[in-house]
Amino acid sequence: MRITKIVFVFLFVQLLGCSQSADVHKEAGEKILRKGWVIRVKQGKLEEYKKLHKNVWPGILKKLREVHVRNYTIFYRDGLLFSYLEYTGDDFNADMKKMAADSLTQEWWKLTNPCQEPVRSAGDGVWWADMEEVFHMD
Amino acid sequence: MRITKIVFVFLFVQLLGCSQSADVHKEAGEKILRKGWVIRVKQGKLEEYKKLHKNVWPGILKKLREVHVRNYTIFYRDGLLFSYLEYTGDDFNADMKKMAADSLTQEWWKLTNPCQEPVRSAGDGVWWADMEEVFHMD
Repeated sequence: MRITKIVFVFLFVQLLGCSQSADVHKEAGEKILRKGWVIRVKQGKLEEYKKLHKNVWPGILKKLREVHVRNYTIFYRDGLLFSYLEYTGDDFNADMKKMAADSLTQEWWKLTNPCQEPVRSAGDGVWWADMEEVFHMD
Repeated sequence: MRITKIVFVFLFVQLLGCSQSADVHKEAGEKILRKGWVIRVKQGKLEEYKKLHKNVWPGILKKLREVHVRNYTIFYRDGLLFSYLEYTGDDFNADMKKMAADSLTQEWWKLTNPCQEPVRSAGDGVWWADMEEVFHMD
């Protein structure tokens, strides 16, 4: 049961990581919240992580869309993963909680979390660490 | 004249950095090329870089749009800058050359380039280093 507990800690840690700094702006009448995060890939886990993401379960993509995530990209370089996404809903934290409560998402994170570890500068309990937006042009 | 030469090396280095790995996909009939790059901020230069980017010259934004760049965001964390942009034109390299040939852009880069240095893993002559796209969802 210890592993289950660890997985749930991961879920909440992901939520915490998701709930910080954000930039909201209007685009053609639409509200968009852009998010950028960074996390480390564990030594030797890059290929597994890439393979998983070449075949993301359709249910995960469906869930992401349900919680108003779009234009979601993950990049890799030098042991780091950078994610960029756009959120179009009205309550980011509530939607992320909905995602974390989804059983399929929990199964997915059981596979992806062991490939990752927070960057050294991440605060206690933060999984993906927020990046600060310093420039944006629509 | 040495400084002018260095600036021109920077321009071409930026172009080289821009011309590598890319992912093209169709979105509602539109062709989009997503680009993700990383570069270091020089020690003590973050505030200057941020200040510059809070007041980007309108002519620079105009030029970026002219060369079919949109949805361009730069994030910062842990001494690194991460840029994400979308290109909607038909010839990315030609458009980046057009940008680099623009005199206002050259003036702008004279201010921003001294704030940056390539990541250690960047190849010879590469300024912004390409990230590899490992996941995307529209």
